[in-house]
Amino acid sequence: MNPPEDLRSIFLRAVERVDPLSMIARSISVESGSIVIRSDGQTFREDLSNYRDIIVLGIGKASARMGKAMEAVLGEHLTRGTVITKYGHSEKLSKISVMEAGHPIPDGNGINGARLLQRIASDADHRTLIIFLVSGGGSALFCLPREGVSLQDLQMMTGVLLESGADIQEMNCLRKHTSQVQGGLFARMSYPARTISVILSDVVGDRLDTIASGITAPDCTTFAQAKSILKKYRLEERIPRSIAEVIESGVVGRIRETPKEGDPAFRHVTNVLLGNNLAACREARSQGERLGYRSCIITSSLTGEAREIAKFFAAMARDLDRGISDFPRPALLVSGGETTVTIRGTGKGGRNQEMALAFLVDFMEDHPPFRNIHFLSAGTDGNDGPTDAAGALVTGELVERTRSLGLDPAQHLRDNDSYTFFDATGALFKTGPTNTNVGDLQLLIVE
Amino acid sequence: MNPPEDLRSIFLRAVERVDPLSMIARSISVESGSIVIRSDGQTFREDLSNYRDIIVLGIGKASARMGKAMEAVLGEHLTRGTVITKYGHSEKLSKISVMEAGHPIPDGNGINGARLLQRIASDADHRTLIIFLVSGGGSALFCLPREGVSLQDLQMMTGVLLESGADIQEMNCLRKHTSQVQGGLFARMSYPARTISVILSDVVGDRLDTIASGITAPDCTTFAQAKSILKKYRLEERIPRSIAEVIESGVVGRIRETPKEGDPAFRHVTNVLLGNNLAACREARSQGERLGYRSCIITSSLTGEAREIAKFFAAMARDLDRGISDFPRPALLVSGGETTVTIRGTGKGGRNQEMALAFLVDFMEDHPPFRNIHFLSAGTDGNDGPTDAAGALVTGELVERTRSLGLDPAQHLRDNDSYTFFDATGALFKTGPTNTNVGDLQLLIVE
Repeated sequence: MNPPEDLRSIFLRAVERVDPLSMIARSISVESGSIVIRSDGQTFREDLSNYRDIIVLGIGKASARMGKAMEAVLGEHLTRGTVITKYGHSEKLSKISVMEAGHPIPDGNGINGARLLQRIASDADHRTLIIFLVSGGGSALFCLPREGVSLQDLQMMTGVLLESGADIQEMNCLRKHTSQVQGGLFARMSYPARTISVILSDVVGDRLDTIASGITAPDCTTFAQAKSILKKYRLEERIPRSIAEVIESGVVGRIRETPKEGDPAFRHVTNVLLGNNLAACREARSQGERLGYRSCIITSSLTGEAREIAKFFAAMARDLDRGISDFPRPALLVSGGETTVTIRGTGKGGRNQEMALAFLVDFMEDHPPFRNIHFLSAGTDGNDGPTDAAGALVTGELVERTRSLGLDPAQHLRDNDSYTFFDATGALFKTGPTNTNVGDLQLLIVE
Repeated sequence: MNPPEDLRSIFLRAVERVDPLSMIARSISVESGSIVIRSDGQTFREDLSNYRDIIVLGIGKASARMGKAMEAVLGEHLTRGTVITKYGHSEKLSKISVMEAGHPIPDGNGINGARLLQRIASDADHRTLIIFLVSGGGSALFCLPREGVSLQDLQMMTGVLLESGADIQEMNCLRKHTSQVQGGLFARMSYPARTISVILSDVVGDRLDTIASGITAPDCTTFAQAKSILKKYRLEERIPRSIAEVIESGVVGRIRETPKEGDPAFRHVTNVLLGNNLAACREARSQGERLGYRSCIITSSLTGEAREIAKFFAAMARDLDRGISDFPRPALLVSGGETTVTIRGTGKGGRNQEMALAFLVDFMEDHPPFRNIHFLSAGTDGNDGPTDAAGALVTGELVERTRSLGLDPAQHLRDNDSYTFFDATGALFKTGPTNTNVGDLQLLIVE
């Protein structure tokens, strides 16, 4: 066993498990002229000969790679397609065109892309099969504001929301109620074409109306909720007048609500969850077992402030190290989800690096060197905050390296400066962009 | 199964397990003229006939109840004794006198008590056996400042430290280096008497030099560290001049350091850990198993900001409820430790009530009613913050009760106003004072 090496291999194996290429190759095939999708023990089958056009559309950070996989699966059956992804997340495709757009703040390319997808959907009839590839990032990448709302208005709203403390559900509620395509509206637009949405989840709970703001799923939120969110964060005066008017008029009924469960728009829609954080966690657990660790998934729904959540991992590590844990050793504890960072300092970092740094600080302040304890936190998209690292890897030697370099990790933590610290100590964890995204993973080994 | 009732019974059973009366009756006895202490698989034995005087001393919130238990064990062997406890935590004793003093800010009664214990220790010789009962709260209750430092200085330092953000290790480092009795100094004072310290731990990690600021244990901290803590929190100008001088002069060697590992003062000392949070967690797990729950201790070393740590429990509950957890159902997950609350609002509450409220808010915002999920967070001392409750019990029905009462739990959470919320919804968990203290317990049931 070589725990630092093992952590690296377990993480990469888990990410490979949720790579769109391997996932789609494993789950989707064409058999006897039908497309067959196997997901979560269920099998879905659709006869391709019923359709004149088979079109692949897609949005999100993984959409180009998902498109590449679908080209391989569909081969000659594929008519054409268009996917919208984030700048720098393209792949080389043959029949499907790739558009790049702005994220997390939407831009004109996102609107152009959405208009194109809207036109394709409107032209589609019952002889068209749309395979819609959905992944995280789609909320910003696929934007078409309601009448009377400009791109600038939408950008301003997104900026205000990102700073407001509103969570992803709340942000998406407002996005859905100012959009012409989100909150299930795309399903209404593509009707009566047959639509199969293939969804890669990056959100905790895998709610289909939350991933990419719910393109082809019934919306659980309402104009009334959108209005109360504006009130809750006192945003009425801070967002553009046009958006406030849309929300207000929606409440009194002039603008139609987003489609709900049971709406006829969804009769021709099938939503299939292709992969999520849990799939990556389970692969990590299996790989851990193969390497000889007694492995357990603690949760795949983790949220919370990164530096505080770190203390939960430190607590479990401490018990294991003292031999008083219910978990057997050598232990691998796996968790996944998406934590948050409240920025108070001026440093550089990401939520995974911040969690790893808080874990280190907790041990350095209270405990003797921890030779048996190894902790990795990293994003499956290979991208932690505005840095070139996926996360950071904390091992026992790091304590001594920190001391010999005369660094003060607590000070770096106070300044949200985890990247600088791990860069100096050589403990950054880099994978490069993975073109998949199922949130973050935490892996804790105690020998 | 009746989960809310079961949570209550599991908690009370766990607290009973760490009740000083039952713990001491189970672990300590007099057999053939020897005192016999069984702890953690080890047996310690001391022939009482070697001693002329057998004296019980004690400090902390559980010291009166521990004294009561020792009276029962020692019977005629006991010569006399004195314990110092917090106001309102007395018990009716016969041979041992009980003094009450201020906590968490020390007062004159604490100094009087410490002087008395100091005198008893100085008078003791090799024919004296001191049984020292140590429990949480002792840092403030047992205070005798170094020369040149007044009670007012000590009170001011404690107040400044409580607001500074310094953790318990850091606070105790300063306490030990301004005290005549803490940081192991009492052991030096009572030498050559034989001293057996019987310790009930309320701190995460059970470090003997931290519980009650380490009365009879070698100190791991130094004057240099005390000085750097003052610097870290920029306290040099905010603490009394006399204390800054003690710390400064200590560093340059005029005042002797606290005794370290290997110091001859500890040759006559035996420290025995009587009970801790883990013992309560294990009893909770056993009682859960008896009631039919598949039970696991997640950690007994929990720290962190209560409202963020709540999200970890919510995440585990969510996975269990969705049937995607590695933990089997019906599940009881147990944890223990001591979280913290950063106060930003003006409401009333405690760390356990705040955690329970954050747990509820997490579910109410993101999820459908959770009929199968039940969560209790409470302090084993029966006392959560400045309230008359031990904690709060969140069950599925609470969601509807909250809605029907028109309450906004998120607003109560923002205002640190958990007590008011749980009082209005009838979900406070009250036990009354238990006169024991091993930190907090969290119990999560998912049916």
